[in-house]
Amino acid sequence: MLIACLDLEGVLFPEVWINVAKKTGIEELKLTTRDISDYDELMGIRLKIIAEKKLTLRDIQYTIDTMDPLPGAVEFLDWLRETCQVIILSDTFEAFARPIMRKLKMPAVFCHSLGVDENNVVNSYQLRIDDAKTKAIDAFRSLNFNTLAVGDSFNDLGMLQRADHGIFFQPPAEIAAKYNDIPVAQNYEVLKSMITDLVKNY
Amino acid sequence: MLIACLDLEGVLFPEVWINVAKKTGIEELKLTTRDISDYDELMGIRLKIIAEKKLTLRDIQYTIDTMDPLPGAVEFLDWLRETCQVIILSDTFEAFARPIMRKLKMPAVFCHSLGVDENNVVNSYQLRIDDAKTKAIDAFRSLNFNTLAVGDSFNDLGMLQRADHGIFFQPPAEIAAKYNDIPVAQNYEVLKSMITDLVKNY
Repeated sequence: MLIACLDLEGVLFPEVWINVAKKTGIEELKLTTRDISDYDELMGIRLKIIAEKKLTLRDIQYTIDTMDPLPGAVEFLDWLRETCQVIILSDTFEAFARPIMRKLKMPAVFCHSLGVDENNVVNSYQLRIDDAKTKAIDAFRSLNFNTLAVGDSFNDLGMLQRADHGIFFQPPAEIAAKYNDIPVAQNYEVLKSMITDLVKNY
Repeated sequence: MLIACLDLEGVLFPEVWINVAKKTGIEELKLTTRDISDYDELMGIRLKIIAEKKLTLRDIQYTIDTMDPLPGAVEFLDWLRETCQVIILSDTFEAFARPIMRKLKMPAVFCHSLGVDENNVVNSYQLRIDDAKTKAIDAFRSLNFNTLAVGDSFNDLGMLQRADHGIFFQPPAEIAAKYNDIPVAQNYEVLKSMITDLVKNY
């Protein structure tokens, strides 16, 4: 029985922070896990900027409301949810994830949580658990699922390598080259075809 | 961060086997986990009857197609999916679950699988794992989720007792009386109110 674990940003939805950076004109918020592989370091930088600029959670949610899933993502996810079980594994936060999930027809998402101060300015974050994506794969394997992971970036490497099947979706060229044992899909049609082949075995 | 694990039949959807029994007139298929607590024994009886009557998977799926979720279940589930993460934990089978999930807007479901012979007659079943519901709760706890389980019957007792919070939904009186430390909701309004109180703490 196959369970597919998908990264969110870069696989189904555009990068939220990049769009917040564009919307607010705060250039330093453009950094993602593609640029800085240490998530704690990255979030430290983001929180410092947010405090300086007094960016509220509502400001960020407003940006998310203006964003759309990647072209073809909703149709791909509809297809996948008919094909096997699907869980989104993301290093985003519940307060960001909820408006995004509505645009994707409410799949289950395992992510983290944010704190805000009395003025709704984001001032902290709490990881539900370290290395959450890899540990979720371990948990599903312990439940006797066959696991498929799809991701695009550094913070997906753990789950891509731990899952029974890992697939890169539109990864940066340098990551794909470095981890060239992980197959690559450059679009949803290829990804569907790779998953269709997998499902035949289950 | 709260994850709600819901039983399917009796909590969101009517009992499939009871309806198959009514539709086909095969009285012996009316037995459920409410009547026989040993699931393997119950499935053994069902498979024997199915073989005798040459009941196909399509016959059963046809019955499921004619069934509707319990009144208010879709609205309750919509609300719950906006409130926390939701996974359906069921001892049903993928081939039965898929048409049911469509009626519930495709939540994730962890269940088991069926085998059919060359004439599409159901001839075997495979549990993904023993005691699947309780082990799923353990897995979610290992991922640092706070867990809520909602069920109605014998095969839910493990998850109801293992979860951080367990709630009976419309249980048979004798089960509720025997396990009277587990709170009971007799309708979705009460269940929503109990969950709303829980969510305040997370």
